[in-house]
Amino acid sequence: MVTVSGVFDPERVAIVGATERDGSVGRAITENLLEDFGGEIVPVNPNVDRVFEVDCRDTVTGADVDLAVIAVPPEAALEAVETAGTEGIENIVVITAGFGETGSEGARRERRLQELAAEYDLNIVGPNSLGVISTPSGLNATFAPRNARPDTISFMSQSGALVTAILEWAGDRGIGFKDIVSLGNKAVLDETDFVETWGEDPGTDVVLGYLEGIAEGRQFIETTRNVTRETPVVVLKSGRTEAGARAASSHTGAIAGSERAYEAGLKKAGAIRVDSTEALFDTGAMLAGGSLPGADGVAVVTNAGGSGVIATDAIGDSRAELASFERETRDRLAEVLPETASVSNPVDVIGDASADRFRDALEIVLSDPAVGAAVVIACPSAVLSFQRLAEVLATFRERRATPLAVCLMGGDSVSEPAETLAATNTPTYFDPTRAIEGLDALFRYREIRNRPERSPTEFDVDTDAARSVLERVETQSDNRLGIEAMELLDAYGISTADSEIVDAPHAARSAAERFGGDVVMKIVSPDILHKTDIGGVEIGVALEDVEDTYESLLTRARNYQPDARIHGVQIQERIDIDGGVETIVGMSRDPQFGPVLLFGLGGVFVEVLDDTTVRIAPVSRPEAESMIEDIESTPLLRGARGREPADEAAIVETIERLSQLVTDFPSIVELDINPLVATPDGVAAIDLRLTVDPETL
Amino acid sequence: MVTVSGVFDPERVAIVGATERDGSVGRAITENLLEDFGGEIVPVNPNVDRVFEVDCRDTVTGADVDLAVIAVPPEAALEAVETAGTEGIENIVVITAGFGETGSEGARRERRLQELAAEYDLNIVGPNSLGVISTPSGLNATFAPRNARPDTISFMSQSGALVTAILEWAGDRGIGFKDIVSLGNKAVLDETDFVETWGEDPGTDVVLGYLEGIAEGRQFIETTRNVTRETPVVVLKSGRTEAGARAASSHTGAIAGSERAYEAGLKKAGAIRVDSTEALFDTGAMLAGGSLPGADGVAVVTNAGGSGVIATDAIGDSRAELASFERETRDRLAEVLPETASVSNPVDVIGDASADRFRDALEIVLSDPAVGAAVVIACPSAVLSFQRLAEVLATFRERRATPLAVCLMGGDSVSEPAETLAATNTPTYFDPTRAIEGLDALFRYREIRNRPERSPTEFDVDTDAARSVLERVETQSDNRLGIEAMELLDAYGISTADSEIVDAPHAARSAAERFGGDVVMKIVSPDILHKTDIGGVEIGVALEDVEDTYESLLTRARNYQPDARIHGVQIQERIDIDGGVETIVGMSRDPQFGPVLLFGLGGVFVEVLDDTTVRIAPVSRPEAESMIEDIESTPLLRGARGREPADEAAIVETIERLSQLVTDFPSIVELDINPLVATPDGVAAIDLRLTVDPETL
Repeated sequence: MVTVSGVFDPERVAIVGATERDGSVGRAITENLLEDFGGEIVPVNPNVDRVFEVDCRDTVTGADVDLAVIAVPPEAALEAVETAGTEGIENIVVITAGFGETGSEGARRERRLQELAAEYDLNIVGPNSLGVISTPSGLNATFAPRNARPDTISFMSQSGALVTAILEWAGDRGIGFKDIVSLGNKAVLDETDFVETWGEDPGTDVVLGYLEGIAEGRQFIETTRNVTRETPVVVLKSGRTEAGARAASSHTGAIAGSERAYEAGLKKAGAIRVDSTEALFDTGAMLAGGSLPGADGVAVVTNAGGSGVIATDAIGDSRAELASFERETRDRLAEVLPETASVSNPVDVIGDASADRFRDALEIVLSDPAVGAAVVIACPSAVLSFQRLAEVLATFRERRATPLAVCLMGGDSVSEPAETLAATNTPTYFDPTRAIEGLDALFRYREIRNRPERSPTEFDVDTDAARSVLERVETQSDNRLGIEAMELLDAYGISTADSEIVDAPHAARSAAERFGGDVVMKIVSPDILHKTDIGGVEIGVALEDVEDTYESLLTRARNYQPDARIHGVQIQERIDIDGGVETIVGMSRDPQFGPVLLFGLGGVFVEVLDDTTVRIAPVSRPEAESMIEDIESTPLLRGARGREPADEAAIVETIERLSQLVTDFPSIVELDINPLVATPDGVAAIDLRLTVDPETL
Repeated sequence: MVTVSGVFDPERVAIVGATERDGSVGRAITENLLEDFGGEIVPVNPNVDRVFEVDCRDTVTGADVDLAVIAVPPEAALEAVETAGTEGIENIVVITAGFGETGSEGARRERRLQELAAEYDLNIVGPNSLGVISTPSGLNATFAPRNARPDTISFMSQSGALVTAILEWAGDRGIGFKDIVSLGNKAVLDETDFVETWGEDPGTDVVLGYLEGIAEGRQFIETTRNVTRETPVVVLKSGRTEAGARAASSHTGAIAGSERAYEAGLKKAGAIRVDSTEALFDTGAMLAGGSLPGADGVAVVTNAGGSGVIATDAIGDSRAELASFERETRDRLAEVLPETASVSNPVDVIGDASADRFRDALEIVLSDPAVGAAVVIACPSAVLSFQRLAEVLATFRERRATPLAVCLMGGDSVSEPAETLAATNTPTYFDPTRAIEGLDALFRYREIRNRPERSPTEFDVDTDAARSVLERVETQSDNRLGIEAMELLDAYGISTADSEIVDAPHAARSAAERFGGDVVMKIVSPDILHKTDIGGVEIGVALEDVEDTYESLLTRARNYQPDARIHGVQIQERIDIDGGVETIVGMSRDPQFGPVLLFGLGGVFVEVLDDTTVRIAPVSRPEAESMIEDIESTPLLRGARGREPADEAAIVETIERLSQLVTDFPSIVELDINPLVATPDGVAAIDLRLTVDPETL
């Protein structure tokens, strides 16, 4: 991928559709650009000579610009894009609506726009975009009524109206931005392009995104995973719920992917996911501070005991912990604080504390090695000046890297102090709980930065053998395979219970003899999916009963479905399930994110409690291991209730091998190993079901 | 209980410690009272003649006041309280600190204060209180720098600093109050007194509380349960987490009760629990509107598609649902909205909507029978005036009872419109997610109002028989009883597996014959708690093995613990556990809330997944039924995975009977029936363990 920084740092900008017409979008953009932009503006409008006293051109031809902003009706917009392409103008913002969001004619225009982008290698933002902002040069190529103030947050939004709202809200709270882009229909440039661009931008400390869908899930993961090693990415992805997904789909026409796949995809990408607009900006403001906690503990310094308790609860809910101070810290606090103060964490500097007392206490707790971050909570009092406190804290921030969140629990009187603190990238809050949620994002990002970067294990497998099993669907009437395809797992080194498929009673008997009697027998038919329900499975069949059981399995299958295709009966060695734990390892394919692996404990844990976890394949070993950590029933694998612990390493390896299989064969649409029995000595796949797409074989 | 409304509606108020001394608490209170109070003020200070030009008295003797506010040092405060008592002044606010919160001398003073209250029948707020406010008369008997504006929210706080903070914050947001009390040390009056008082106060629409502990849990439940039939009560109870509870305990000296008991207690009380300061006031402001949803659906009307999606997600997370409009509603919307608008819910009135278009759309959706509440979300645009929108919506609120939440997604420009809406008790938000959380509280309160009010069933039981079982602990060296006490359950009609305790091998054999052979045998010893672990339980013993098994159980017990007291061996009929589900029904006693009942599915569900639920006893039938609904593994009782459903009614009755038992006998400290096996035909208690306090027998 290449970055598209040219969208944000042009020297000359053409406005196609520049006008002075009252209430028009073209006028709003022209005014915004003329107001603050440090470069040159070239209005384009064949109908007038001058716009706001700047000479107008008829077309962009010869305008010699490096960004064209287009705000003319759809067909004219397409012409302007083509002209720009021929002129070698690479960066284009299409404000114009009436494309993919509006019926078939619009969809045709959007395709044409994509063709032009490909033909001339154009970076096109939009169409149907509010525009772009970049504060270093004062570029405001939007029709929003407010510009942004400069800072280090870059923000992309799939909703233009949200950009307008955020500009007003953030502006009045001292929150600024580096770049902003309204993504519009994402016909050409999408979220991944901007993550890539801002990842390489030294002016951007944190990337925020409001997204309703992610077009190319796997590309997004790869890029974001890379960027988040240095730059945090925070995403509000709406359409989480079923109704929300429907609303998003009708709003943007985005294909609704599965919520679980989005959750797994954003996690794999290293993005921090939030659920509300406030959380997006609370998190962004905190991360823009740039420093991360050096230890797991949070110190609380407050002049109000109650707020300290509320903050302590919130810390208990977070990834962080309440710091336990060293003896020395408490002794030093006791020296500077009044007798009735609390020198343990939370530190209560009590109601008559001045800003200086806050400073003294903070100075001491920040020296404690257990303290990785601090929250200062101040309630109004006659002896405390919020402004003086803000100045004291701002000085701290300049001297120390320890992250700080500040609660000024007052009304309008906090505005000026909040601005003082915002200037040092120190966010302020009213509510202690929100302040801790903000700090929690730093601990979350620290985890992301420290995550192990491991490639998926490459096992030595027999792809030819696997392919030949999958190719069997070409000669059947449907795409499903069952236990008869266990060799697929063998080919990828996944342990299976020993078995043989036979088509006559005497062959069943000989197979059972080889497995030492006491076998499992299952009907093999692609037409019977729930074998147990129709009595198609018999467990623990004694040697002398094998031939009779063969006949009765066939009879039951025929009674259930006379025209079912029956491949025979599988004779399988009996694994001691009582000494083991049933697990499920599976895969389904998501339109945005590709193969999604699933792991859980079998039986009630999956069917009743839905205690499962998913990851996007391919997974590395630490990722496969983390799946086992995720589920609540994991203690059952680890010897809960007096059992011998199961062989977890074998489960992890099975997940990794399945990951390799479904990555190698895009034709596998879904696959379930259920159960995979895990014992102290290893694992064995007992049953298998998969669907194959012959088109992608 | 009696109400203490006299604290809030005095006609003449004495200030003991009135002074003009700069920076003193006494001066702050005097100034606050002189500023707005509609009644008369009587300064009391023997050292000066006049305070702020009002004549001063030496003592409250003869002051003829109905409220005394005391702000003199601790010992003088106690004297003043006594004088007030002898003068018949019933209502007293003790601002003075230096009582229970500060060591043994303070604790003595606090006990003395309680004695005086009892002796003279005084309503004492505090000590260590910021004071009280009541807006109808302009009473501000606090030393806070800001007064409250009048409204219908009454607020109590166990933190005085939080009151100061809230007064500033709420004041600048147009949120007002009826009464406010800073509870201080709660030496005399506590949260329950104020819930009771405000429950009967026509001026209070909603009660908010910040609490760090609830002193008398059962009294709080009874009062609050009664009050919440008419008036919602919202509680921020801090100290939820272990660290938080420790912090709360060191802040207020409150005994830390169990968090699960608080959760169950607040639920039984019908209180709405929130976890943050913002949520407390978001919820309070919404409930102060007074109207409740008439249907389950929420309509969303917005000029920004993206915000509509975010709101839809939040509705998906809430108790409410996104309303599905009737055909007629959509048709009518289509008539008034532009073609590109969305006439399904969420309704997108699109970016060029004026306030009038919002009004037209809202008018239509509010007529839809599925709509019980609406949220209006407005992003800034050139054609939309937030102020005009606020006026339009305020008019709606005056005409219609349907609850409304409004998001004005802007910066400082929303202040005036927000005040316009606040005047009609319509809360405004920036974040759509928070607005929906606010609305959710209305749906929650609707549930509380509609909850069934049923008394606990009174079963016909044999209390004498039960008592004689419990009295056995008087003749043993410890307080625990085990399976030998199963008659306790029989006495309360709880089904038990048939059993007999025997003390010789031949007696074991005869008992086993009566149960038809194939019995369960268990060692009976108060000293061996984990019988299974030492091989002290044998299941499915055949008749011919009973005598040998008797001997080996005794041998194992003696090997395990040579000095264990052994009461014999229990011979129990074998219940078919495979055809049933193991459950646990238990009880423990909480210092604040008394007996807490527990229900869960046995085995891994309790031990590994902690899938249990608790209620405060005594429980009504609907409460017992709701315990079964609470746990995640309930589908296993209802025939998941092809099983026959268990007899739920028998489980419910067992919970009710246990509730009656532990309510009748406060001496039962804890009790576990584990397992209680539930089959399609009923339940049977298989094992029992309990602890009895001989002191309360």
